[in-house]
Amino acid sequence: MLGTGVVGRSIGSRLVALGHTVTMGSRTADNPDATAWAGATGGGAAHATFADAARAGDLLFNCTAGAASLEALASVDPSDLAGKVLVDVANPLDVSGGFPPILTISNSDSLGERIQRTYPDLRVVKTLNTVTASVMVDPGVLGAPHHVFVSGDDAEAKRVVTGLLAEMGWPPTSVVDLGDITTARGTEMYLALWVRLYGALGTAQFNIGLVR
Amino acid sequence: MLGTGVVGRSIGSRLVALGHTVTMGSRTADNPDATAWAGATGGGAAHATFADAARAGDLLFNCTAGAASLEALASVDPSDLAGKVLVDVANPLDVSGGFPPILTISNSDSLGERIQRTYPDLRVVKTLNTVTASVMVDPGVLGAPHHVFVSGDDAEAKRVVTGLLAEMGWPPTSVVDLGDITTARGTEMYLALWVRLYGALGTAQFNIGLVR
Repeated sequence: MLGTGVVGRSIGSRLVALGHTVTMGSRTADNPDATAWAGATGGGAAHATFADAARAGDLLFNCTAGAASLEALASVDPSDLAGKVLVDVANPLDVSGGFPPILTISNSDSLGERIQRTYPDLRVVKTLNTVTASVMVDPGVLGAPHHVFVSGDDAEAKRVVTGLLAEMGWPPTSVVDLGDITTARGTEMYLALWVRLYGALGTAQFNIGLVR
Repeated sequence: MLGTGVVGRSIGSRLVALGHTVTMGSRTADNPDATAWAGATGGGAAHATFADAARAGDLLFNCTAGAASLEALASVDPSDLAGKVLVDVANPLDVSGGFPPILTISNSDSLGERIQRTYPDLRVVKTLNTVTASVMVDPGVLGAPHHVFVSGDDAEAKRVVTGLLAEMGWPPTSVVDLGDITTARGTEMYLALWVRLYGALGTAQFNIGLVR
């Protein structure tokens, strides 16, 4: 797990509860949030640097802030990325101008694509970036069918991630495969609507369901 | 009605069927699509230049291509815009690079805002730009509750438009007021997801419903 924020901790705790072994990676091995999280979570949880966490993981989650994602990955030995699946949950938000944020990458590019281009041997799957952390790990908290999206170039990687999403409570019928990693532009740009829905609804605990 | 494409003709026909008088505006008074539409629609329908259509209308719809919207409005006498409500349905899509299109305006600006800034006395309400024409005019064609959004600086204009949406089949519970016209960025940028859902689902006849 790369990133010790609420997203990383929420997904990490859910995966540990499901029986997975999770190493929470941060810039430093002794990040207080990661240390406290690993201590509270008990067996199956550890904390380490980004580099050591990436080395330990069979499957990686990018839960860093979008603006920090490439720097975090740059601190990892590339041989610890090659061939692995990276679930990219980050959004390239620029919050420096206040709320609502704008995107630092959009329209003709996306963070997901940029990570994939930088690490061609990494199998990037963009998903879960369209919902708040509490919905990511417990989709049943919402009262009607709703959807999450996967974008990625590697079909087998998307199957692996869809299986992991099912473990987390997202039935296959709730997962829409948008296509290759360029489709991450769609879900990242949706954030511009998400932040305004958050403002209008007064809660982050919502999602969209596709209606046909 | 500014714009004679499928969106303009669909909304125009629906409004005529609801008893409204509609003038379909185009660059030229004798646009073949507008002429054919007005002829087929019968009473309550006319065709004219953008300028004459805007002069005739109490309430205006911008259904031009997003890239052509400001040029279309520039051909109208500004005194025929002042104080009127403009329902902005257009999206600033650049289709020159093929499918999927990119946006010509996004992130820190939107077409809706640009129209509002250019015509401060016009009361711009962005709406309906998140669904295909057949859903705009017949939301009941979809099988479950789904939502449409309104963005605009003028609360009374949004009330008028919400009333018109209700006539077209959108109950008030399906209309989400996102806030001022800057929130048009959200619905316009959602198009980046919409076009990819269109690709993945193989149909344009879908929408999103908010789930809480």
